[in-house]
Amino acid sequence: MAVADREAPPHELGELRERLAELADLRGIEQMLSWDQNTFMPPGGAETRAEHMATIERLYHHGMVDPTLGRLLDALEPWAADRDDDDDDAALVRWARRDHDKATCVPARLIEDMAREAARGYSAWLQARATGEFSHFRDALARQVELRHAYAACFPDAEHPYDVLLDDYEPGETTGRLRPLFTALVAELQPLVQDAADAGAEPNGGVFTGRFGLADQRRAILAILGDMGFEEETWRLDPSPHPFAQSPGVGDVRITTRYREDDFAYAFYSALHEFGHGLYDAGLPVTLRRTNLRDCASLGVHESQSRLWENVIGRGRPYCNWLLGRLQELLPGCFDGVDGAGLYRGVNTVRRSFIRTESDETTYNLHIALRFELELALLEGRLEVDDLPAAWNAGMSRLLGVEVASDAVGVLQDVHWSIGSFGYFPTYTLGNLMSAQLWERLRTDLSDVDEQLERGDFGQLRDWLGEHVHRHGRKLAPRELLRRATGEELRAEPFLAYLRAKLTDAGITPA
Amino acid sequence: MAVADREAPPHELGELRERLAELADLRGIEQMLSWDQNTFMPPGGAETRAEHMATIERLYHHGMVDPTLGRLLDALEPWAADRDDDDDDAALVRWARRDHDKATCVPARLIEDMAREAARGYSAWLQARATGEFSHFRDALARQVELRHAYAACFPDAEHPYDVLLDDYEPGETTGRLRPLFTALVAELQPLVQDAADAGAEPNGGVFTGRFGLADQRRAILAILGDMGFEEETWRLDPSPHPFAQSPGVGDVRITTRYREDDFAYAFYSALHEFGHGLYDAGLPVTLRRTNLRDCASLGVHESQSRLWENVIGRGRPYCNWLLGRLQELLPGCFDGVDGAGLYRGVNTVRRSFIRTESDETTYNLHIALRFELELALLEGRLEVDDLPAAWNAGMSRLLGVEVASDAVGVLQDVHWSIGSFGYFPTYTLGNLMSAQLWERLRTDLSDVDEQLERGDFGQLRDWLGEHVHRHGRKLAPRELLRRATGEELRAEPFLAYLRAKLTDAGITPA
Repeated sequence: MAVADREAPPHELGELRERLAELADLRGIEQMLSWDQNTFMPPGGAETRAEHMATIERLYHHGMVDPTLGRLLDALEPWAADRDDDDDDAALVRWARRDHDKATCVPARLIEDMAREAARGYSAWLQARATGEFSHFRDALARQVELRHAYAACFPDAEHPYDVLLDDYEPGETTGRLRPLFTALVAELQPLVQDAADAGAEPNGGVFTGRFGLADQRRAILAILGDMGFEEETWRLDPSPHPFAQSPGVGDVRITTRYREDDFAYAFYSALHEFGHGLYDAGLPVTLRRTNLRDCASLGVHESQSRLWENVIGRGRPYCNWLLGRLQELLPGCFDGVDGAGLYRGVNTVRRSFIRTESDETTYNLHIALRFELELALLEGRLEVDDLPAAWNAGMSRLLGVEVASDAVGVLQDVHWSIGSFGYFPTYTLGNLMSAQLWERLRTDLSDVDEQLERGDFGQLRDWLGEHVHRHGRKLAPRELLRRATGEELRAEPFLAYLRAKLTDAGITPA
Repeated sequence: MAVADREAPPHELGELRERLAELADLRGIEQMLSWDQNTFMPPGGAETRAEHMATIERLYHHGMVDPTLGRLLDALEPWAADRDDDDDDAALVRWARRDHDKATCVPARLIEDMAREAARGYSAWLQARATGEFSHFRDALARQVELRHAYAACFPDAEHPYDVLLDDYEPGETTGRLRPLFTALVAELQPLVQDAADAGAEPNGGVFTGRFGLADQRRAILAILGDMGFEEETWRLDPSPHPFAQSPGVGDVRITTRYREDDFAYAFYSALHEFGHGLYDAGLPVTLRRTNLRDCASLGVHESQSRLWENVIGRGRPYCNWLLGRLQELLPGCFDGVDGAGLYRGVNTVRRSFIRTESDETTYNLHIALRFELELALLEGRLEVDDLPAAWNAGMSRLLGVEVASDAVGVLQDVHWSIGSFGYFPTYTLGNLMSAQLWERLRTDLSDVDEQLERGDFGQLRDWLGEHVHRHGRKLAPRELLRRATGEELRAEPFLAYLRAKLTDAGITPA
């Protein structure tokens, strides 16, 4: 009896789990509403949807800051401290504490302001995009920067205000660690782009250019993703203006892509990217369902999965060889004049371009470096919103050597700032770096992975990712997850080495 | 100052409205989740969706029974009593009181049991349908009946336990008033079917039989509904196994239909039916947004709108004449050998059939009469669940003169009982009766409605329905709404007269 009592978890654990389950449901419902908003919602429903999202957000915040939750955590922490760090319940208590404390630092009024202004900022951004006039976005953006200052000020102990923003997307990440990472990356990428960029080249070397019916494209993508792990029972693929992946909960993984009739890569590589995200969501363990741990470790880790499938695998030589055969089967006549080496070289074409989302793997992180610089300057008060377009254009000239002709293809191109997502961009680069480190380790563990990919066998690859990344859910901090998976700290060199080797192997830069 | 104070609404009104807005949001979110569940959700997401729905339901119930809500109502009722019955705020307080009191009568445990058992009942029903074996459904159904008894017992003041169930769908409706209505209806409908039924006829007289590509069907339906009031900005039409209409909120109206390649009526008349529902939702006044009044008066009134468009208008001679021209334009070659009179006669064909949802307008209410009888017998303890299939078959033989060969096309055909929706079926008949009464009055007010329909002009018709039905939202009880719109009490004779006249006019029964 005494033993049983000692071994049984405190009764507060059940109550905590019940509350976290409700909060997890609200998060899942929010994902569902957001998926619909970005796919099928009629335009007229926008205002109603904003109200519904705000209500879910308010209920979530209300539940998260509930003092009873704090008391449950107080009661459980001594018990959890005695348990292994990797124990589900210990992690559950740890992350609940983090979320509760973070939420209680922010006044409900500020949360509401941020939600309302995000909707307004988005509208202003849409209008500015449509007209190409930064002036239509200026006030809304200034308000977003102001709100970010107010939000950061809720955490006076942070070393740098930008750390507060980063932490929302990449728990534990700091400005101090990111700065040297970007400096090193930019220094190495600039000469690489210098050597590799082909001014006259079409995107993807023109290999995917042609005439492709939209239904044919969709069918081909579904067939290829089906080979890779997309399952009709639990996945969906839909069209949307901006590709994304979302999983409202266990057994429900939704990815989107968009289509161009004259360029199959436009849909295909977006779908491959979102497939990587989807596979992470699909691999979150069912045992963590309806907890605060059924989530990604961070956006950076999420991005490591999407970029791994899109670029490291999807633009690698073995996969390209397999892909070509599938494309020739699925889209007869469209890839007749292409060979594996040509496809491989084509999809690794390097071009200096204006638009981040359309940029190639080699230039991509320079686009991010620019955004990181500008966000820091705004947060540190070194840059005024009015001076942002000029700073953007100067940065593009310095980093990528292109002259931005209009704000539409410059400072107005991304949605993030309009909805207040400052501190988000760096996670794209973190994902790229992690994907190369994970890949290096995976190749050691699965020595014949190239042969597997050549024959379209993805099972062991998926299993490795499941074991080393997906199954942890949100239990491990992102850098700890990487450390365990690779035995290394986060660093830029593996990514740079991988990129150099590929550009040489594909015949884009001289050996 | 004193005057201003007397005129300003009590401060509790603002708080009440805020709480009702959140509850309205939860209802809208539930509709959204349900729409997705029945259209695009991957099958693997079912369990997650059930959890999300249960959480929304729990939050709604929690908010509705909150004693603070009761205290706000206590404070507001004297103020509301001084106001006009039709005043928005007075109605808001009145219906909030009704919902609050109803919800507080039912223990949270029973609410949870009903939600859980609805999911189980639905699964059992699906399995029973797939195998055609009533035995797979028996226990789940018995549990549903038991839960309905428990639910009814929460309202000991009700005259009849079935009244409690009815009131959830048709506020204020009673068993005592429905019984004579159905008796009269059955007595008149049986000889009518006797005279009109054509044993050899195809559904809709075969006029819509042929080969129709699904994309062509969808395009034609969208074009025709577009003429009638479907707007791309705020409406959607999607495929689903069971047609339905849902509106998550202002500016967002979603209808569905299903398709058969060999029968265009299958998709078209379902879409017309759901269009009628959608128009009601679209016509709910924006001023009632995020209140408990932005809802239908009852399911019967809702059904009066769908059946009006599907049958009274959609199977009337003037509309058929207009429709034929549109069909010949939109689906070239498919309606060449048909004339207006033939289309009109075809869509009014009377057939004795097994399946309610596929039955024609004349036999339809006999299907409902059977379900009403059986539900009453179950609720009054005169019928055991084990004896239900035999009672069903005997009823079909007596009412419709058909011998049911298997439970799949008999007692297992409808989903309602599996999810505990007892008391729901009669609203279909109420809707049919109301549609005829509304139509009679509308024809008086718009004397040239036939000419308008002949030329596909639906504006005045929509306006009349908006003015007399839609704009009230949930403010009026259903019988009061009918009284105001028509000057009459609910009765069966207008429906029977309408039916007799049409069957004669179409040449189906002798003049």
